[in-house]
Parts: sequence; structure tokens; C-alpha cells
Amino acid sequence: MTMKQNLHFVTLATIDLDATRAFYGALGWTPLIDVEDEIVFYQVAPGMVLGFFDAEKFGQDLAASTDHSRLGGVTLSHNVESPAEVHELTGSMAAAGGAVLKQPQAGQFGGIFHAHVQDPNGVIWEIAHNPGWHVDADGTVSFSEPTD
Amino acid sequence: MTMKQNLHFVTLATIDLDATRAFYGALGWTPLIDVEDEIVFYQVAPGMVLGFFDAEKFGQDLAASTDHSRLGGVTLSHNVESPAEVHELTGSMAAAGGAVLKQPQAGQFGGIFHAHVQDPNGVIWEIAHNPGWHVDADGTVSFSEPTD
Repeated sequence: MTMKQNLHFVTLATIDLDATRAFYGALGWTPLIDVEDEIVFYQVAPGMVLGFFDAEKFGQDLAASTDHSRLGGVTLSHNVESPAEVHELTGSMAAAGGAVLKQPQAGQFGGIFHAHVQDPNGVIWEIAHNPGWHVDADGTVSFSEPTD
Repeated sequence: MTMKQNLHFVTLATIDLDATRAFYGALGWTPLIDVEDEIVFYQVAPGMVLGFFDAEKFGQDLAASTDHSRLGGVTLSHNVESPAEVHELTGSMAAAGGAVLKQPQAGQFGGIFHAHVQDPNGVIWEIAHNPGWHVDADGTVSFSEPTD
């Protein structure tokens, strides 16, 4: 069986659901489904949902021996229209309670201009202006190959 | 400035790009862009890209003090049409080199039937049949609230 090339949910462990709701709410996001003390879901692309799942339940759901309550090795990216908007949104995220890890600057890869901001869970958002990135009307993504 | 409710890229640190290519290739996936020794991108939803980024460069890109090379606190989900397909795809992923963390079974949350399989990077895929989940033609997701 092949696997359709589709991602349907990204689920992140959270140790503070209320801080998560406050942060994304301050940025203007509306939950798709919000379950007290358990999980909050946001639709973030056609057919795609981002969930923040109480860390204890996240661990129970996996039922694996490893500690999966700490976020690492993942970034989420959000593209904007210009370097000025990278500055502006980074400021808005800081005002909403985010921690700026990397101030707006030219990136090392891909010819982009970006910043990195942590949400209350420690998950890292890259806020980027990528002049070579484009989404067609049908949802097809194209962008230039990263050049160092 | 509000933040549009959109996720454009999910980027995961990988310590073995070739193992990543082999695993997803065995499942039938085609890269959107593949850069030797650096990153491989797959389009996984309209307007949305999943990237596997060489762990050393991932760390350089973040330029943060924390070690972000280890994956944790995140799962990616892929939904299929039936419990039988959960079994079938879990078997295909194991055959492709994935490690089955949780054999196909009823989940603790949300009324689903699922399995958990790690890819060569340790990232955890949930393969799920969720009878209450639906995507409209315009990409809008709906699903039942999780009930314990």
C-alpha cells in the first residue's frame, strides 16, 4: 500500500492549554474545536489541522516509553509578503507573549528574510518573507531551491 | 497585526537524509524539491509543505542555544478510510523501515482506530481511521469533538 502524500494533523504537546489559547487568540486565530483540559484544534490549511494536546494525555495517547512532552526538532513556518511584515508580525507575536529567539534578519538558507519566535509551548515559529515562494490557485506550492 | 490562520511549512530535523528519502520514497512520495546534503521537501496539503532538514543545518538556522536536534512533542497524522487500511498502511510503513510504536487498536481519545509508527528520524506518524472526520470540497475540515 502506498501512502497518499498528505498530512492531515500536526499535534503538539502543550503543558499550558490556556496560555496556548491566549497566545493564538491574541493573534486572531479561531479554534476549530476546543475541548477543556484536553486539546485545542486550529485549521491551518485546506484539509489540515494543527492541534495542541495536553502533554499528559499526549503521552498517554502514544503509550510509548520515551518522554515526548518536550518539543524539539521541529519548526512551523508562516510566510508573509515583505521584510517589513516579518518585523511587524514578530512584534505582534512578542506582544502576545512569544519569545523572540532570532530577530528579523536574512536567513542562512534559501534567500529568505526571517525571524524565529517561540510560542508558550516552546514551539518555534519561523516568520518568513520568501520572494521565491508561490502558491497557485489550486494549492500547488512552488519555490526556488535553497542556495547557500 | 493579526496572523493569518495558516501553516505553510513544517520542518523537522533529520540526522539521515538518505534514510528519509528511502522511507518516504518506498511509500510512494515524490519530493517537491530535493537538495543534496541539506533538505528534502514534500508537498502534503494544498499550500503546505513538509521538510526534512539536515540536523546540523537545522541547528545553525535557528542559532539558538538549545539543542533542537532531537524530535519530541510532535506527531503527524494521516487518515485512512477504514480500520483495515490502518492495519495495511502500518504494515507497509514497517516494511519501508518504520518502527511500530503502537499496534493498530482503538485510540483512547476521539473515537478513532489508530497505530503509531516512527519514521527513520524518530518522528511519530499516527495512522488513523476517524469515522467523524470529513474534508469538504473547499478544504474545510470538520470532525466530532473528542469524547473520552
